[in-house]
Amino acid sequence: MREVLEEWRPIVDGEIERLLPRAINETYLSEFFGPASYEYDPDSLQRALSVPIWNLLDRGGKRWRAIVFLLLIDGFGEDPHDYLPYACIPEILHNGTIIVDDVEDGATMRRGQPALHHIKGTDVALNAGNAMYFLPLKIITHNPADLSAETRLSAYEMLMHELNRTHLGQGMDICWHNKQEIDITEQEYLEMCACKTGCLGRIVAQLATIVTGQDESVQQTAAKFTELMSVAFQIGDDILDVETSNEDGGSFGKGAGNDIREGKKTLMAIHAANHAPPEKVARMEEILWADDNTPEEIETVVDLFYETGSVEYAREQAQMISKSARENLAELDLDPVVTEQLSEFTQFVIERNA
Amino acid sequence: MREVLEEWRPIVDGEIERLLPRAINETYLSEFFGPASYEYDPDSLQRALSVPIWNLLDRGGKRWRAIVFLLLIDGFGEDPHDYLPYACIPEILHNGTIIVDDVEDGATMRRGQPALHHIKGTDVALNAGNAMYFLPLKIITHNPADLSAETRLSAYEMLMHELNRTHLGQGMDICWHNKQEIDITEQEYLEMCACKTGCLGRIVAQLATIVTGQDESVQQTAAKFTELMSVAFQIGDDILDVETSNEDGGSFGKGAGNDIREGKKTLMAIHAANHAPPEKVARMEEILWADDNTPEEIETVVDLFYETGSVEYAREQAQMISKSARENLAELDLDPVVTEQLSEFTQFVIERNA
Repeated sequence: MREVLEEWRPIVDGEIERLLPRAINETYLSEFFGPASYEYDPDSLQRALSVPIWNLLDRGGKRWRAIVFLLLIDGFGEDPHDYLPYACIPEILHNGTIIVDDVEDGATMRRGQPALHHIKGTDVALNAGNAMYFLPLKIITHNPADLSAETRLSAYEMLMHELNRTHLGQGMDICWHNKQEIDITEQEYLEMCACKTGCLGRIVAQLATIVTGQDESVQQTAAKFTELMSVAFQIGDDILDVETSNEDGGSFGKGAGNDIREGKKTLMAIHAANHAPPEKVARMEEILWADDNTPEEIETVVDLFYETGSVEYAREQAQMISKSARENLAELDLDPVVTEQLSEFTQFVIERNA
Repeated sequence: MREVLEEWRPIVDGEIERLLPRAINETYLSEFFGPASYEYDPDSLQRALSVPIWNLLDRGGKRWRAIVFLLLIDGFGEDPHDYLPYACIPEILHNGTIIVDDVEDGATMRRGQPALHHIKGTDVALNAGNAMYFLPLKIITHNPADLSAETRLSAYEMLMHELNRTHLGQGMDICWHNKQEIDITEQEYLEMCACKTGCLGRIVAQLATIVTGQDESVQQTAAKFTELMSVAFQIGDDILDVETSNEDGGSFGKGAGNDIREGKKTLMAIHAANHAPPEKVARMEEILWADDNTPEEIETVVDLFYETGSVEYAREQAQMISKSARENLAELDLDPVVTEQLSEFTQFVIERNA
């Protein structure tokens, strides 16, 4: 499975570089975005788009969204190389949301380096992040795999559907964050994950089904597979933040124990609020909503998560959701080798170490 | 012409309210964005989207983008009422860009009140602004005027084209802003306006031609009309900022002399840099790039703009571009009454007082 990652990652990056070169000139701008009305300033556009975007991409990231897309194409019996530009769509969108989310969350670190807006300024980072919401959608108009008008319309409508719901997910997350009270249900938390993280996963799978002309039912099953995979991934991410909270913060990109420091309402926090004695819940909330926390305070909350069985509960939920994801995958009835690769991938994504 | 504005504005606002109600509930969310995977949190989504967006919309704005769209529909011989939801697309997009631009520019005021991110927080404002980039595009999927698949695809492809170029415009503007040197040409300045402001104008006109099934050549002429109108509008806006710089700052939404305070490279600044003696240019640049300015410093730059004929030059350019806009309008050969209304509108938009 690591071989799959290692095989495809440079190919995906090469394709992203074709879509957004490190060095931008007038010819690229005219060909990709259409001719200027007056005259482009390629130097400024290189500093505004190419430099900040590659600054983030060069920090790493596994490109698993692109690679799951390519494996699905393979599984549907088509040649992944024919659809490479489409593989970049969810990858560029994802990295765009990272830049914007970091501004929204006031994040300081990303992939072990200062968040992009701390290096390039909020204006440049934000505009680059937002440009990444639209740049990849232009690929469908360029139509590299010679898709029919109906197919391209389906792709656009699917993308608009999912990108709208992405903003619902982020909206819920932000509002909960700003409200100093745990009054949300587990179902609402899962919805937030399904929207905020799951919709990008859904884009991966649905784009693969749409460009290869699969039935609506296959599209829905594939979407469910990657949505559930993403939700499980998010819960896994939350658990990882707790597990590594006592270790060297630098080893986990964003700094561990961060969710507690930020007062994030994770599945563990919701579960603990429902299962701990009132005075312990009160103390946990005090710590969650404080502007700053001592390492001891972080530990108090982590201990409570373990005492109430909340970490274990979250892990069980992630595993159940992951199992359900693999059931949807099995239902797609792809080539066994590809199914095995995607299944391993699902496990890997959820159980990964940073 | 004011009657046209007064007649349509409440109708447009009513339609926006149908698309994004002030009170959000589960039924609306399921119908507009599709059913939840688990369970939406309507209260949070009201606070995340509806409240901040209506906070901005209720401050005013003439909705001229929606109204120009409706007049064009009328001019093409169709009933504007049949296309009301589409009229909201450029209007919602425009207000979304306002929220995002204000975060990017670090603006403090908007339409006479604190910028939205100062009231609602950067996270809520930014997510609401970005949601406004995608919410209106969902209208095309909902397909209220029963358009063909080809027509909807054309609409999406046009929107992706223009929204990409919008980010090129903003990218150039930001980079120039951050670079303390006037080394751009007038053609590059006009391109920035054509992208940043003009593309939204182009959306207005092209959406009207696409939904009513006009020829490609009509689409291009109409797009040029509103692009040029928008560029002239932008230059008019720059002039207004200089003209009102000695008056009560509060009378002009953003605070007058603001462009100088922000170090904006306007057509006047470029012209003055090319026509003033070197020592005066050096002093102007010193003032433009300073973190803060005294009223006397603002006046020094304003005086230089007048001495070098730069204000007059910008006004001439705006009038030439506006004339060219009206020539494109005439070429559309619409009903004379509508042509007259749109022509008055163009004048009004450019020569308006705040």
